[in-house]
Amino acid sequence: MEETFVPLRGIKNDLKGRLVCYKQDWTSGFQAGIRILAPTTYIFFASAIPVISFGEQLERNTDGTLTAVQTLASTALCGIIHSVLGGQPLLILGVAEPTVLMYTFLYDFAKDRKDLGHKLFLPWTGWVCVWTATLLFLLAIVGACSIINRFTRLAGELFGLLIAMLFMQQAIRGLVEEFGVPQSQREGTNQIALQSSWLFGNGMFALVLSFGLLFTALRSRKARSWRYGAGWMRGFVADYGVPLMILLWTAVSYIPTNKVPRGIPRRLFSPNPWSPGAYVNWTVIKEMLNVPLIYIIGAFIPATMIAVLYYFDHSVASQLAQQKEFNLRKPSSYHYDLLLLGFLTILCGLIGIPPSNGVIPQSPMHTKSLATLKHQLLRNKIVSAARKSMQKNMNLSQLYQSMQEAYGEMQTPLAHQIPPPLGLKEMKESTIQLAQSHGYIDCPVDEIVFDVDKDVDDLLPVEVKEQRLSNLLQALMVTVCVAAMPLLKKIPTSVLWGYFAFMAIESLPGNQFWERILYLFTAPSRRYKVLEKHHATFIETVPFKTVALFTLFQTAYLLLCFGLTWIPIAGVLFPMLIMLLIPVRQYFLPKFFKGAHLQELDAAAYEEVPAISFNLSFEDSGSRTTAVNISSGEILDEIITRSHGEILNQKSRNSTPTSCEDTIPTYGTISKDSMSSSNSIERVKPPRINHDREGDQVQEKY
Amino acid sequence: MEETFVPLRGIKNDLKGRLVCYKQDWTSGFQAGIRILAPTTYIFFASAIPVISFGEQLERNTDGTLTAVQTLASTALCGIIHSVLGGQPLLILGVAEPTVLMYTFLYDFAKDRKDLGHKLFLPWTGWVCVWTATLLFLLAIVGACSIINRFTRLAGELFGLLIAMLFMQQAIRGLVEEFGVPQSQREGTNQIALQSSWLFGNGMFALVLSFGLLFTALRSRKARSWRYGAGWMRGFVADYGVPLMILLWTAVSYIPTNKVPRGIPRRLFSPNPWSPGAYVNWTVIKEMLNVPLIYIIGAFIPATMIAVLYYFDHSVASQLAQQKEFNLRKPSSYHYDLLLLGFLTILCGLIGIPPSNGVIPQSPMHTKSLATLKHQLLRNKIVSAARKSMQKNMNLSQLYQSMQEAYGEMQTPLAHQIPPPLGLKEMKESTIQLAQSHGYIDCPVDEIVFDVDKDVDDLLPVEVKEQRLSNLLQALMVTVCVAAMPLLKKIPTSVLWGYFAFMAIESLPGNQFWERILYLFTAPSRRYKVLEKHHATFIETVPFKTVALFTLFQTAYLLLCFGLTWIPIAGVLFPMLIMLLIPVRQYFLPKFFKGAHLQELDAAAYEEVPAISFNLSFEDSGSRTTAVNISSGEILDEIITRSHGEILNQKSRNSTPTSCEDTIPTYGTISKDSMSSSNSIERVKPPRINHDREGDQVQEKY
Repeated sequence: MEETFVPLRGIKNDLKGRLVCYKQDWTSGFQAGIRILAPTTYIFFASAIPVISFGEQLERNTDGTLTAVQTLASTALCGIIHSVLGGQPLLILGVAEPTVLMYTFLYDFAKDRKDLGHKLFLPWTGWVCVWTATLLFLLAIVGACSIINRFTRLAGELFGLLIAMLFMQQAIRGLVEEFGVPQSQREGTNQIALQSSWLFGNGMFALVLSFGLLFTALRSRKARSWRYGAGWMRGFVADYGVPLMILLWTAVSYIPTNKVPRGIPRRLFSPNPWSPGAYVNWTVIKEMLNVPLIYIIGAFIPATMIAVLYYFDHSVASQLAQQKEFNLRKPSSYHYDLLLLGFLTILCGLIGIPPSNGVIPQSPMHTKSLATLKHQLLRNKIVSAARKSMQKNMNLSQLYQSMQEAYGEMQTPLAHQIPPPLGLKEMKESTIQLAQSHGYIDCPVDEIVFDVDKDVDDLLPVEVKEQRLSNLLQALMVTVCVAAMPLLKKIPTSVLWGYFAFMAIESLPGNQFWERILYLFTAPSRRYKVLEKHHATFIETVPFKTVALFTLFQTAYLLLCFGLTWIPIAGVLFPMLIMLLIPVRQYFLPKFFKGAHLQELDAAAYEEVPAISFNLSFEDSGSRTTAVNISSGEILDEIITRSHGEILNQKSRNSTPTSCEDTIPTYGTISKDSMSSSNSIERVKPPRINHDREGDQVQEKY
Repeated sequence: MEETFVPLRGIKNDLKGRLVCYKQDWTSGFQAGIRILAPTTYIFFASAIPVISFGEQLERNTDGTLTAVQTLASTALCGIIHSVLGGQPLLILGVAEPTVLMYTFLYDFAKDRKDLGHKLFLPWTGWVCVWTATLLFLLAIVGACSIINRFTRLAGELFGLLIAMLFMQQAIRGLVEEFGVPQSQREGTNQIALQSSWLFGNGMFALVLSFGLLFTALRSRKARSWRYGAGWMRGFVADYGVPLMILLWTAVSYIPTNKVPRGIPRRLFSPNPWSPGAYVNWTVIKEMLNVPLIYIIGAFIPATMIAVLYYFDHSVASQLAQQKEFNLRKPSSYHYDLLLLGFLTILCGLIGIPPSNGVIPQSPMHTKSLATLKHQLLRNKIVSAARKSMQKNMNLSQLYQSMQEAYGEMQTPLAHQIPPPLGLKEMKESTIQLAQSHGYIDCPVDEIVFDVDKDVDDLLPVEVKEQRLSNLLQALMVTVCVAAMPLLKKIPTSVLWGYFAFMAIESLPGNQFWERILYLFTAPSRRYKVLEKHHATFIETVPFKTVALFTLFQTAYLLLCFGLTWIPIAGVLFPMLIMLLIPVRQYFLPKFFKGAHLQELDAAAYEEVPAISFNLSFEDSGSRTTAVNISSGEILDEIITRSHGEILNQKSRNSTPTSCEDTIPTYGTISKDSMSSSNSIERVKPPRINHDREGDQVQEKY
């Protein structure tokens, strides 16, 4: 996306780009069939559960004016509209924490004004939304989003980690509160349950439930690589583990019945949509004219803050959902989505419900889950193809042919407009390579070292099932939630806290910032393990000290942002602080870090240093063998270290081996750190030596 | 050990065998230096904690006549004597569950007899002990233990698993009881703590504490392979993780202070040794003559049961502590130890404390921990040697030379009487092999793919630090426990239940019976993972169906034994049922299983089929390259799959590759089971193909 501020051009481009694939967005969604339900339910819970707890929070802060019903309604409404009319269907919308903080602030302000007060609060927020929307339109039209390129990993991943910290904080705070008397004494709260003895029991029970959920949910996600149980069962658990575990632990929470009073453990609280209070909203528009002019104008001030917030949140959420590693085929749509967000904001304002915006970590989680889905679909198709040809005793080239075809069938028509995926070339080279290296090339496949299940996994590139269906379905499920309130109320709050912790942890892998932090804590003698595993390029190309310095700076900045969120009102402005990262990254950091290093650690489009990448070495036919060695080297690495079902970072995957050539000096520097880390040298050598030898053999063969 | 029933010969042989190495038993213990404390504390907790809880149990059942003080005293006394005078110092003595059951039974009988009653209970048990001892002497003298050879894996491992089940049952029962009113209302029990509300809280707290201990303790044992933290720290946690975690969770149990009444969580209960009740024992001998003659004679009946029990427990515990995999260098001493046990039983009887005998799983745990210790010591020595020569840029043969010397220095003088360990030959072959395969042989080592830390681990054979010090020290620690009662009482019972579960789980790995059960549950498509990992021979040489059948039979038998333990009195006789396994194994099983298969699944000395083993292929110089290929193949396997710090099963390690040659048919049968399991074929091939190639290269080189 070029950086242009010509009015409307951004929106035009977005529309042009997305319209091409609009139809295909739906068809491919339906092609996925029943499997689409896996990512859908996964995201549904990820988006509904926090929204409910935010609703509960909002209810306490606004004396029940806004409840989980409203937050859910907003999430459902905006979700449906965005999934159908929105530009980037990977983006998940929902009522987020900042919105809640904002509305709390607005309510505190309004309730004390006698000519505004509790009664005119919602109408007034209506005006706030109108102003916010206007600002959003403005931003969208002037093409403000085109500076999104300047949001590098640095900003995006820092924000991602910050959100994870906020979720974890929420989980801990929630658990601690389980030991105390609940803040809001609701009608029908059981007084016995408030005796210190029962409070203690409740707290301990909460610990059991939340940790139970956290552990089992985390385990279930890895089910595919379990040793036990039938394949379909493992797949099912991996796909639906989270909802299953929520069910399981909700069931467990009902086990202690005898002598335990009602209200232990505490469960979700929210009025049903059909309870009297829930209707005030729909009359908001009428009352908006009763708001005094001064406040209508004054509404502009909070509006600016919200606008900035949404502009940032929405764009970054969308960006994190479209990271390079996912190899998306379809274009982004920042401006158009921001425009749509404006309309959604007005809509919500007029019916007096808090507006939704793009949410983190749900949006990236959505893309990840769709990548897993696509992986499964591709895999099954190709494996079955491979199996067939193995039964037919085909030789390897034929095997490859059939897999090639199978892969081709899975490609979307769009795919042809875009350079074909590397995955395939690699697959051919490496597979044949593997065989040649063992001197088999024409004998039947099943005598060759080719483990269909495993190798195919290793060979497939990351691709994402880009479609609108999952987003629409999850939004519809949220709608159903509003009706299913009575059921949701059976979920214990402690399970919810466990789920918050789960989301925080789930959002970490793939976040290079986080991985760098872990890398810093890795014992020098153990660094080779990182190298054996699938890892990002910088680990090999950037000296350790630089990585450490960069990460420490980022961490300090993160803590600064986290601290800011604790300041009552200013808290909402932490996006400002993160935006500040743009100039910092552009003008400040280059003074301290080498350009090449910065490029590795935090690639920025506006910096010209080209990232070393597989394509390059592949395009020029001269370096054929290198290319071959690379892929086969990779395969060796991965057969040793890859675990199933994980997301594969295409970029680093490509550049790792190439850089391997020019990393020995870097290693020198690393190994200076400590004697034992010289292992890391030895660790990475074997593959290299191997391909060299295989490479030669290839030469001989030709 | 030949099967002979010539009176006293067994004892003579044992004494002859052990006296040779008696001095060395002590010296090598002290050579280990401070590190000896790691296995010592590990075993100390493993033996003290159950003894305390058995003591608590005994106290309830005998109206306080016998308490934890007595059980601890017995364990300490017998432990010290055995560690100094005993034959096999790997054997750990302690008061075991069966003894507790027996004494409960005796008490129930005695207390109702008016001319025996509560008062003469202990004196009477004194007589029971005397009779038991006499029978034990008899058994020892006639050489009853020489039939121990007939106790094959089948019996030993079944018994091991049974004990694990009993421990786990204890853990679960204990946790459930935490929710109810404690059985024995002790003086000073806080009545408030018995309100249903606090009972609930106590139970939930117990869940948190016990699972907390279980998880953290299990984790800490794996600390050596952690990615984070300095090496020394990881080592420390791995060595002392269990005591650390008990401390940690005991500390945690003190966190909730405000408003929580005393007695929550419940803690260990036992009188202090200096409290009045604890002295009755020491006067038992005087009173023994007051026991009516009829009861003195009648005491013979229970004595027979106890004698059988001890004969069995003691021998099997000793056997499990000396399994083949441990490659022990020093001889066993079944008869002499049984004789000594007789004396110990009398001693305990006369001072009115329940006697101790060899305990499971502590004894095997003891050997395992000593194997780890030895591994650490060897490793450090050799690694440092290797490092030195790498700094001196020696070539590989020199490197090997220096490692060879280092290894030599670590060998006990005894070692020369026994065929030198294979580990070394292997090391040479494989290391050089590895190098040749990459065409390096004379260039400096550090250019060669040789990761000191890792490869050395893979090359070292299992050896055990056989000495008496650790046993003596742990016994002394138990003695200190008696005095340190007030401190022990701070440990919450729930932590104790967690620890029981921990012991049950710790005793499983290495138990082939257990591993076969897991193997049955492994999805066919995942079986290749078992093959990749370090595994026992039968997995490759015995068809799956046979393994399944054998395991199912064993499981059924296990459940039968477990069921028997639930029958009040007969429960003590479950050893009888296990002894029944000797004829079953000898006459019944061969009818259903092929001799070769039985040999693989459950090697028995009296069956003549020789186990396929590495030595054979190694002895005849003709098959040199095969031998080489084998070892290098192993290394490849292991470099891929070995995890640090684990015990390595020498036997299977040796025979795996050899059998590899003749297993293809077997695979055929496996792969028939399902299409996908044909992976297992492909999985194991790469190494083979590799050595073949490397093998050729070797030929060329010569």
